[in-house]
Amino acid sequence: MTAHAAAPARFISFEGIDGSGKSTQARMLADALRARGHDVVLTREPGGSPGAEEIRRLVLEGDPDRWSPETEILLFTAARRDHLERTIRPALAAGKIVICDRFADSTRMYQGLRGPGLRAQVDALHDLMIGQEPDLTVLVDMDPETGLARALGRNGGEERFETFGQDLQARMRAGFLSLAAQNPQRIVTVNGAGDIDAVAADILAVVEPRLT
Amino acid sequence: MTAHAAAPARFISFEGIDGSGKSTQARMLADALRARGHDVVLTREPGGSPGAEEIRRLVLEGDPDRWSPETEILLFTAARRDHLERTIRPALAAGKIVICDRFADSTRMYQGLRGPGLRAQVDALHDLMIGQEPDLTVLVDMDPETGLARALGRNGGEERFETFGQDLQARMRAGFLSLAAQNPQRIVTVNGAGDIDAVAADILAVVEPRLT
Repeated sequence: MTAHAAAPARFISFEGIDGSGKSTQARMLADALRARGHDVVLTREPGGSPGAEEIRRLVLEGDPDRWSPETEILLFTAARRDHLERTIRPALAAGKIVICDRFADSTRMYQGLRGPGLRAQVDALHDLMIGQEPDLTVLVDMDPETGLARALGRNGGEERFETFGQDLQARMRAGFLSLAAQNPQRIVTVNGAGDIDAVAADILAVVEPRLT
Repeated sequence: MTAHAAAPARFISFEGIDGSGKSTQARMLADALRARGHDVVLTREPGGSPGAEEIRRLVLEGDPDRWSPETEILLFTAARRDHLERTIRPALAAGKIVICDRFADSTRMYQGLRGPGLRAQVDALHDLMIGQEPDLTVLVDMDPETGLARALGRNGGEERFETFGQDLQARMRAGFLSLAAQNPQRIVTVNGAGDIDAVAADILAVVEPRLT
């Protein structure tokens, strides 16, 4: 929570494992910034534009093994390109703050850690077709057991966990923490284990000084 | 029609502008090779596997401007990756001949010529995520006026031509011929203007010696 950058943060992403509370926290940050008079666009990935939402359905519905990791990486990158062009860049150009629930770091982890060579492929594809990072990324850190308990208490959470399992969530968490260590200027890690209002206050305390 | 390669051709693609007759010729070659006892898989792009056909629908249905060229390139590459994994490579591994109506050269032309920098992006994406070319590509060459007249005589052809127009078809033809000149070992140009049986005989005369 000590990273500083010269340019004001306008494009802010939230990352974390399933059940970390990042979607709730993204929404709470949007509400808090709106209450302070900011013009905020709250969006999400995969999806966030009409075309990208259609690609999202193509990837997430049906048999989870129907796409190889490589095809999934291409589909998520196509969705991200559309989302950037149609939602994120126009909002930034209009002077709005964009808060995005998941961005490229999720592809780096969820697809990039599924096999040897995939992470390098995700990075090369990002450089070639996306070439944009958030100004600031809030990593909501959570141990997988707590995250699992939270996600299981949610409708529809079970299926995802049957598919991915807790070992994978532990690898994702380690991957996100490592990514944060490699990108201290961009990624700020916040402890997501506490009361949600306390976590939201921590996040606001990180974000507000970065807005100007 | 004089290119020769050391390795036998197993993966054969057909390319050409709209109305060139390449789909008819691909089918006629498949029939001719089957009649000679070969095990042939006839397939097409975009599409050719259940997942890739779903991506095809996503790209080709609806407003033609709903995807940017870059997003389209990513979607076509995702479809190609799936098609390669699920249809083409298994058929080649089983010793079959694969005849494919359009492959990466179509993306190089139809998307790659739509704006500056796009062709280089198509090529870089191909190297990164596909990395496979056909052993032999049959370019069915046709002047755009003849191709247009043929396509207009076909159901559903009108809409495509209203969208793309004859100038673009002329640029595509020049692009395909230039691609053939740059890849003489792989791409064989056949004159598609004659009687379809005569064109089919020309193509068979090119392909048969390359099979062994």
